[in-house]
Amino acid sequence: MDQFSEYYKGRSGLTLGVVKKLYAKQTPYQLVEVYETDSWGNLLTIDGLVMLSEQDEFVYHEMLSHVPLFTHPKPEKVLIIGGGDGGTAREVMRHKRVKQVDLVEIDEAVVEACKLYLPTVGDFDHPKLTLRIEDGIQFIENTKEETYDVVIIDGSDPVGPADGLFDTSFVEQCARILKKDGVFASQSESPWVKHYQPSMQRLAKGLKLFFPRVNPYICSIPLYPTGLWSMIVASKKYDPKGIHINETLRIEGDDFLNGCRYYTDEIHRAAFALPAFVRKIFQIE
Amino acid sequence: MDQFSEYYKGRSGLTLGVVKKLYAKQTPYQLVEVYETDSWGNLLTIDGLVMLSEQDEFVYHEMLSHVPLFTHPKPEKVLIIGGGDGGTAREVMRHKRVKQVDLVEIDEAVVEACKLYLPTVGDFDHPKLTLRIEDGIQFIENTKEETYDVVIIDGSDPVGPADGLFDTSFVEQCARILKKDGVFASQSESPWVKHYQPSMQRLAKGLKLFFPRVNPYICSIPLYPTGLWSMIVASKKYDPKGIHINETLRIEGDDFLNGCRYYTDEIHRAAFALPAFVRKIFQIE
Repeated sequence: MDQFSEYYKGRSGLTLGVVKKLYAKQTPYQLVEVYETDSWGNLLTIDGLVMLSEQDEFVYHEMLSHVPLFTHPKPEKVLIIGGGDGGTAREVMRHKRVKQVDLVEIDEAVVEACKLYLPTVGDFDHPKLTLRIEDGIQFIENTKEETYDVVIIDGSDPVGPADGLFDTSFVEQCARILKKDGVFASQSESPWVKHYQPSMQRLAKGLKLFFPRVNPYICSIPLYPTGLWSMIVASKKYDPKGIHINETLRIEGDDFLNGCRYYTDEIHRAAFALPAFVRKIFQIE
Repeated sequence: MDQFSEYYKGRSGLTLGVVKKLYAKQTPYQLVEVYETDSWGNLLTIDGLVMLSEQDEFVYHEMLSHVPLFTHPKPEKVLIIGGGDGGTAREVMRHKRVKQVDLVEIDEAVVEACKLYLPTVGDFDHPKLTLRIEDGIQFIENTKEETYDVVIIDGSDPVGPADGLFDTSFVEQCARILKKDGVFASQSESPWVKHYQPSMQRLAKGLKLFFPRVNPYICSIPLYPTGLWSMIVASKKYDPKGIHINETLRIEGDDFLNGCRYYTDEIHRAAFALPAFVRKIFQIE
């Protein structure tokens, strides 16, 4: 094999030059693989779909973390569902205000593969981190109290084990375990890929039932289908779009942003400006 | 053949399912081809590089047109260099304020291929349009006076006939033929593709010698390498970043924006918020 291809429609998609396959494990949930590519570093795939590469993972992880984390003034306790590569947790734990991160990944093989072949992505020995290998939906159902300041859904596409992460019943559970000023964020697929649009709409609609503020936003991820990716932040109290992070940076330290390669204060606010066709998908007037 | 691939590094890039090849002509300048794809409509390529597809061309053409056109309050006379597919001219001519468009394409085969197989892209019979088949660099050198309100460079990658479009000497000529409050815009490649970064920097640096305001901006084009694309607007007088288009819409008509699928007033301003790594490439403090 000298190439990996992910087709999102017909025979159209992304192709990556492959130096060699480093890891492959069929688990009860999915097929987890790592490739060494010719131009993006090592690459994690699940069921043949790109999850991340060493060279572009910073976009996804910064945008899924820092948008909700800077929306909340005191995000001490954070729950991440999925995200077994550790990248979202890494970015979340860079915030000094964060005291505790629970990372709930369903598939141990994802963690194993990343520890072996993508060691710069996660920091699994970090004292703030508790890693749990279990079903995130179950974990949330078993959580009895309003416990978290921020919940981040870092799942794969809405097929297989991640499908339930777009359901209204799941969103309701997330709202239930968030404190009264809690913030929720989730990845929500590419606006260009028609067959995921119903899932995007289902997620946004469900969130509106439980959060007064529901704001889709976008970023540019080169190895995801079409390169345009959407995420959603939902907030019980604080306005995600109105944030200027200067005050927060007094706590986090001025050099916090120097550790970011995509996220900036300006990007935070600009990410909510959606292209006209994306506004239509999310039914924004 | 059942697939077309464009690799931007090693064997990594974009792959499109091909139903059939509709057009191929080797001209003195380049190889012009049109494919029918399985998922993006018909596709124009030059020397094996994607120029546009029917389904995603609106992003590029709206963002390359409306950002400079809404920056200028009275863009009556517009020059487009390249852009033989007619898409940029189509968007420019939607502005009522525009009275005359000169479209200077070096290669007649591009126009021919698009008239035949991408007829929805251009509107070559529009009364505002003058199409000239000649070298754009020569055309500008032969233009003696400050004539244009807006000059738009709609060229291909900085190899082959389009390489000179990134030179400081060319930028100087563009500034020379623009009126005292003129606006310039050009496509400027993907920030992710390292081998084009010197061209991007050369263009930005050159522009700063002749325009007080030089502002790179970004948009998301699914069929261009990495999906993240940069453009630059340079202005002698008006501030491209400070524009709110409400007043202009009183002239253009409220339904102008209904004809846009990507561009919005918010997108105009948000497009100037660059990811941290893109700020570094353009050496923005």
